[in-house]
Amino acid sequence: MKEKYYEDYHVGQIFKTGSIFVDAASIKEFAGQFDPQPQHLDEIAAQKTIFRGLVASGWHTASLTMRLFIESEFTSASGIIGAGFDELSWPNPLRPGDTIHVVIDIIKARLSQSRSTHGLLKVRMITYNQNDQIVQREIVNLLVPRNPLNLS
Amino acid sequence: MKEKYYEDYHVGQIFKTGSIFVDAASIKEFAGQFDPQPQHLDEIAAQKTIFRGLVASGWHTASLTMRLFIESEFTSASGIIGAGFDELSWPNPLRPGDTIHVVIDIIKARLSQSRSTHGLLKVRMITYNQNDQIVQREIVNLLVPRNPLNLS
Repeated sequence: MKEKYYEDYHVGQIFKTGSIFVDAASIKEFAGQFDPQPQHLDEIAAQKTIFRGLVASGWHTASLTMRLFIESEFTSASGIIGAGFDELSWPNPLRPGDTIHVVIDIIKARLSQSRSTHGLLKVRMITYNQNDQIVQREIVNLLVPRNPLNLS
Repeated sequence: MKEKYYEDYHVGQIFKTGSIFVDAASIKEFAGQFDPQPQHLDEIAAQKTIFRGLVASGWHTASLTMRLFIESEFTSASGIIGAGFDELSWPNPLRPGDTIHVVIDIIKARLSQSRSTHGLLKVRMITYNQNDQIVQREIVNLLVPRNPLNLS
């Protein structure tokens, strides 16, 4: 994959990631490490929660979204850095048996004022399950390196 | 630990979590699964990035913060649910050898309009390393169950 720089992105560009299948075991494993609550750990206990069944931790959904993003055509530039979120929400839970993918689009682009070597992209990432339900909405500001050939 | 409900929280309450030590192996393991970028995977490659050394994925910092939160005195109520973020940022990176803890304070509280069984708490969670540098700032809105004895 060709190295991408700030100059290679433009507002309106859309990227679609690959997909990941999520099973109950991986949901429980993540939760055991990072979010040990009944709705993420045990099918029977989860039935009694607001979710009426096992659901992934939102942080698991966010981390899987990151992996899909990193493996997508978007991120061939080295060293993309998150510089804060405008939005992060989980409108529907991720459930065992779901297959998710992410649609990424660039909504703003400008040069960084504090780092002359970088540009700032505002990017919307929507994570969908196999029924096109939204399991995560994210708007994030990314610091992306400028092409060294364009720097003087 | 006594079960806590919406009625047991109030604005201005502060909770301090326990702490977690983070080593290079756990940083690389998380990154290998969810955020495979050079600054999270390899000390030598990380030297050439803006971070000048290995750093944890922001999602790893967020997930560890969640675990500290879940294990704290705050979350003895069953079934606390995230309902969106006002802020999530990583002002300083989490590095191998760091020990982190979280300070949680309640900045707003009101009853939910859509769910009569729940209240909404706006909570600030600041994650510090052992040098009191901030590695994560988070402001999150949480749906918390009301005490069933108070519902009619």
